[in-house]
Amino acid sequence: MKIQQVIKENRLELLFQQGSFGIEKESQRVHADGSVVVSAHPKCFGSRSYHPYIQTDFAESQLELITPPNKKIEDTLRWLSAIHEVVLRTMPQDEYVFPLSMPAGLPPEDQIKVAQLENPADVAYREHLVQSYGKSKQMVSGVHYNFQLDPALIRQLFNGQNEYQSAVDFQNDLYLKVARNFLRYQWILVYLLAATPTVDANYFRGGTPLKPGQYVRSLRSSQYGYVNDPSVKISYDSLKDYVNTLEHAVNSGQLIAEKEFYSNVRLRGAKHARELLQNGIQYLEFRLFDLNPFEPYGIALNDAKFVHYFILLMAWLDEESTESAVDLGKEKLAQVAWENPLSPTAFQSEGERVLQQLLAMLTEIHAGAEIATIVKEKLAQFADPTLTLGARLVNAIEQHGGYQKLGAELAIRYKQQAFERFYALSAFDNMELSTQALMFDAIQKGLKIEILDERDQFLSLQFGDHLEYVKNGNMTSHDSYISPLIMENKVVTKKVLAKAGFNVPQSVEFTGVEQAVANYALFAGRAVVIKPKSTNYGLGISIFQQGVHDREDFAKAIEIAFREDKEVIVEDYLTGTEYRFFVLGDETLAVLLRVPANVIGDGVHTVAELVAQKNDHPLRGDGSRTPLKKIALGDIERLQLKEQGLTVDSVPAKDQLVQLRANSNISTGGDSIDMTDQMHPSYKALAVGITKAMGAAVCGVDLIIPDLTKPAEPNLQSWGVIEANFNPMMMMHIFPYAGQSRRVTQNVLKMLFPELK
Amino acid sequence: MKIQQVIKENRLELLFQQGSFGIEKESQRVHADGSVVVSAHPKCFGSRSYHPYIQTDFAESQLELITPPNKKIEDTLRWLSAIHEVVLRTMPQDEYVFPLSMPAGLPPEDQIKVAQLENPADVAYREHLVQSYGKSKQMVSGVHYNFQLDPALIRQLFNGQNEYQSAVDFQNDLYLKVARNFLRYQWILVYLLAATPTVDANYFRGGTPLKPGQYVRSLRSSQYGYVNDPSVKISYDSLKDYVNTLEHAVNSGQLIAEKEFYSNVRLRGAKHARELLQNGIQYLEFRLFDLNPFEPYGIALNDAKFVHYFILLMAWLDEESTESAVDLGKEKLAQVAWENPLSPTAFQSEGERVLQQLLAMLTEIHAGAEIATIVKEKLAQFADPTLTLGARLVNAIEQHGGYQKLGAELAIRYKQQAFERFYALSAFDNMELSTQALMFDAIQKGLKIEILDERDQFLSLQFGDHLEYVKNGNMTSHDSYISPLIMENKVVTKKVLAKAGFNVPQSVEFTGVEQAVANYALFAGRAVVIKPKSTNYGLGISIFQQGVHDREDFAKAIEIAFREDKEVIVEDYLTGTEYRFFVLGDETLAVLLRVPANVIGDGVHTVAELVAQKNDHPLRGDGSRTPLKKIALGDIERLQLKEQGLTVDSVPAKDQLVQLRANSNISTGGDSIDMTDQMHPSYKALAVGITKAMGAAVCGVDLIIPDLTKPAEPNLQSWGVIEANFNPMMMMHIFPYAGQSRRVTQNVLKMLFPELK
Repeated sequence: MKIQQVIKENRLELLFQQGSFGIEKESQRVHADGSVVVSAHPKCFGSRSYHPYIQTDFAESQLELITPPNKKIEDTLRWLSAIHEVVLRTMPQDEYVFPLSMPAGLPPEDQIKVAQLENPADVAYREHLVQSYGKSKQMVSGVHYNFQLDPALIRQLFNGQNEYQSAVDFQNDLYLKVARNFLRYQWILVYLLAATPTVDANYFRGGTPLKPGQYVRSLRSSQYGYVNDPSVKISYDSLKDYVNTLEHAVNSGQLIAEKEFYSNVRLRGAKHARELLQNGIQYLEFRLFDLNPFEPYGIALNDAKFVHYFILLMAWLDEESTESAVDLGKEKLAQVAWENPLSPTAFQSEGERVLQQLLAMLTEIHAGAEIATIVKEKLAQFADPTLTLGARLVNAIEQHGGYQKLGAELAIRYKQQAFERFYALSAFDNMELSTQALMFDAIQKGLKIEILDERDQFLSLQFGDHLEYVKNGNMTSHDSYISPLIMENKVVTKKVLAKAGFNVPQSVEFTGVEQAVANYALFAGRAVVIKPKSTNYGLGISIFQQGVHDREDFAKAIEIAFREDKEVIVEDYLTGTEYRFFVLGDETLAVLLRVPANVIGDGVHTVAELVAQKNDHPLRGDGSRTPLKKIALGDIERLQLKEQGLTVDSVPAKDQLVQLRANSNISTGGDSIDMTDQMHPSYKALAVGITKAMGAAVCGVDLIIPDLTKPAEPNLQSWGVIEANFNPMMMMHIFPYAGQSRRVTQNVLKMLFPELK
Repeated sequence: MKIQQVIKENRLELLFQQGSFGIEKESQRVHADGSVVVSAHPKCFGSRSYHPYIQTDFAESQLELITPPNKKIEDTLRWLSAIHEVVLRTMPQDEYVFPLSMPAGLPPEDQIKVAQLENPADVAYREHLVQSYGKSKQMVSGVHYNFQLDPALIRQLFNGQNEYQSAVDFQNDLYLKVARNFLRYQWILVYLLAATPTVDANYFRGGTPLKPGQYVRSLRSSQYGYVNDPSVKISYDSLKDYVNTLEHAVNSGQLIAEKEFYSNVRLRGAKHARELLQNGIQYLEFRLFDLNPFEPYGIALNDAKFVHYFILLMAWLDEESTESAVDLGKEKLAQVAWENPLSPTAFQSEGERVLQQLLAMLTEIHAGAEIATIVKEKLAQFADPTLTLGARLVNAIEQHGGYQKLGAELAIRYKQQAFERFYALSAFDNMELSTQALMFDAIQKGLKIEILDERDQFLSLQFGDHLEYVKNGNMTSHDSYISPLIMENKVVTKKVLAKAGFNVPQSVEFTGVEQAVANYALFAGRAVVIKPKSTNYGLGISIFQQGVHDREDFAKAIEIAFREDKEVIVEDYLTGTEYRFFVLGDETLAVLLRVPANVIGDGVHTVAELVAQKNDHPLRGDGSRTPLKKIALGDIERLQLKEQGLTVDSVPAKDQLVQLRANSNISTGGDSIDMTDQMHPSYKALAVGITKAMGAAVCGVDLIIPDLTKPAEPNLQSWGVIEANFNPMMMMHIFPYAGQSRRVTQNVLKMLFPELK
């Protein structure tokens, strides 16, 4: 099967480079010293009966992390990063993820527990594997790389040829060609990327075959790795042969099941191989990759890109590997696997020739400079084996006094790194923090996530057949359409809330002094604030906290306000503190107090120093990438200081509160303080009632309350509602500056998926 | 009780003029000749067991139309207009609303049916009235004017005095003062506004008391009107006396119930008078107004304003009427009622004095020029009685040869007027037509409407305790919040619909020729349209209707498109016609075809003449006040004509279709054609499925369909969805240019209130 001509004639170069990528990555949970744990799969990772991202492989200690398929390999690695962050931040404090394929400090075989899956057949299968291979071998971990060619490409290639009548046959043979060529040249990837040069002696059943000080390229790809008995012979000549020989191996008892066939290329797309004849091979799974310990998540992006084009080359080559060439490839693999990583390979010239062919292909398909650079780097590693991953790993092992110590040190470092921005999901940092938090929780619980529009924060979440859409982390199908429309309109909001019997401050707008004063009677005796419609620095505002009792006073305040604006508002004045209530359904989940940017003096440091200290807080940053913001020292803050008789160089007295802002916004450096437990329950019930009155499921309600410890009374002196928000910020409740964190995103998920325990 | 001083000292002038207004208006349903019908209350008016707007008074033929209370009398009259439009457009074709208070062409007593209300007690009460007063008297109609002083005013007046200790007592005495003064001076309103100068002889049980050719001011306010037996004496001295004397009248059998007390002022706010002692009088009902036949809805706005200030004067006056003054007032009323409307009244000087007092009050409370002008006009009517309503009516009756003929002619005219803009609710014409249609239906069905924000089209609808909010006529609590968010985002919409298995045309955006051409393989063989992202007059668009099969053709089309814009879109081309499906819940309620502005030649008229003819259609207008728009003859239309080799002066051949626009928007003169019954049901089911996939309750789905008679198939050749709208226009379905009207607003109400039959 030759495809070069068809690709060139039909200009399919771009389509040829498109496809779909998925990664599965195994690794052992270990103690701080790198030794494998014997604890059960942590419950916090959710249920393995359906989890799409976090599973166990052979053993209870062996995590299998699975990305969804993506059109871009970059996105696949983003998912791998996100799943890792969830795992690392969720797992027990004293456990780590081992970054090397070969296990270290293995417990005695009887303490290694096979994965305790719900389906008894799955457990039985693993017990069978123990009989056939022993437990140690099963503890080896690696990366599986799934790749699908673009279906449109296969269709166009089929249309451009005249050898095949059946599109399915064509598709099967194309994937089989890739599989055979890959098996023929797989040793090249082992030479370049292998990272299992050594292992503890107790890994081997009959004592270690390694001489003292001996390192090899890949124990995992050698006969000591996870391989079938040499007597198992499966043919890749044609799909029919493949199916027949595989079924024979199972029927004759050589294998307990088809899945026991450990080829480095698996044909995917059906539960049983025979179904592939009908449905066609859908994608290939490449299984020979050792974990790259220098990468926090086991595989480097450049290597993943290299593998992609290497696989494409296997389809591109005009000459095609035969069955005997496949056997030759397997022999070369075994030989290269046992070579010294610091020495050249016996097949250097073949390797260089193939990578030259790869470079030639890149030119022909206009693949761009980036991938060519990557391939050239790999090519150079044939001349200088010390540049290979294996060689670099051997050096690192030597430096650290053993692979376990190296692995342990890296495991601890990677876990620390995962906590550096613990409030974010790093790979999705271009989305809002609350969407990141929701995605974190969804990954943890095992909901299938699809990002429908990254910039628009639009996700779909799925559990079984149950599909839900979420925007901005909390806009869902549970809110009715009319609720945000009510909340968007302040006039309507006030009418709706007043009708429902809640304490709503009234306000009236005036466009002239005379008109306003003529309406004095409306306000006489009431506590009111009189202010220009647009206020600057609080100019023109008068407050009658004890009620306005004199018409002349009122007229004067009106005149002052009209000096600042053409429109003046007179509204009920509420005495008290503003609290944000986060309501979901029937419950106020969190209550937050927002305090204007401030520092507390210590009698020693200047204001500027105190601000710098406070800005050091891990939650504070610039822009939108942190839950809290750094306090600035700009004009507004300096003016605020001046009003207190201070400058940035003043040294405030011990315990002196220094205000740096008048407004309490988090976005200008304000502090967020959780007050959920301190708030009298009557106000929480009111916030729920306000939310219900507007038909909302999720709502941020702002109440003014003079005394949060006293029960609410039905008058504006006791409390008043000043705003309701249909898209309330969640981050400030999840990561407050002080007080308890309230993980409200989890409640959003519980609301959407009550069936999820 | 003196309030002038308190008002002036506390500057309550503005507050004094505020209040709340409601109107109840009775009238007879009549035949075209003005004679009273004997048909049942039309079912289309909804159920009288709860209807807030449309009820019956005494008889089955006697409509009672009730406005909700409003802060502005103008709004109350708007409601009166709206309720009338609903009644006039809904009632049987051969029935009319009689504009005069006195019934004409009364059927024999045994054919007059008392209102058939659900509650047997209500029917029994009416049967009792028949015994006491006869049926004829009960057939007289009038206007009841409800007025409430601003509660804030009453509070401030109470605070400003020191005579009363109890606020409720103060409030009761204030309203009682108004009632007494009103009864003392009510004759003035009868002189100015009475409109019942004559009636048929068969109205009277014992023969007519009117001499041939005799007219009086108000039969209705005379002893021949709807009055109690003179032996019924109810005291207005104090609320206690009022309650005691009223209860005595009932207990002694003089009255069957408190409501049988037909005073021209009723104290309102409780079911039983005794409750008023506790709760206070809430408002007053003034019942002496005859229907003004020169006003379509029975009362003129200026008169309504005059009555408001007349009532205020009754509160304002320092001197207060005593019980004997009230009796004097009743005597004067009887005398004035029987005067000749063309002659001066016996009490001219008292009338002029009171109106002078009214003018003086207006000055003191800074009431403005408009009301002063109105009062001065009324004042002039004392010197010249021919200017009074009664005199003008007598002249009209003479001219028309009887009050029945006059009434019949006016009734027919008012009904015609109500149909002039049959698609609108005239009084709410500043709102969208679809909101007007929804309000029309809600008034008809008897849902309580509150306009929360007129400019924002925000309503609340209520039935019993069931409250719903509606914006723009179809945004409700039944749509989930996420649906409009999905529909707002075209990328997400396509993903959601494609995931759910619907035929969605794919489109790809390119920013350069090379990039686009490199992706040729994605489109090879597919029917596509290539177009600049922003298209002007269709420039730069290429369509490959049979599929693009040549790379060079594709490249050429891409280049042409890039000449017009920096971004070019390649998308699947759908052959067929675009239809709008209006979906509500599980049903496609309407399917519409929109045709670009056009005229059909007749071989005689020019294009300009044909356009003018077509623009004469009653549904066509300019701006947003009509369902269809007039066809313009601007540059775009002339260019379109030129492409067909025509000018505005060309005379197209008979049946020649002349296009005046390329786009099919209704807003540029397009035709809307209902195709609901022609459309194959499979597409209607698809539109419902698309709506459900997006979680919407109401949705406008745009499908492209080549053949609406063939069943839908699962491919883009058969149909494709191009858009989904969460706020679909309803007017074009309700008032299409051709085809059947689909009253979808009724379905919106049924969805919101399934309990409403």
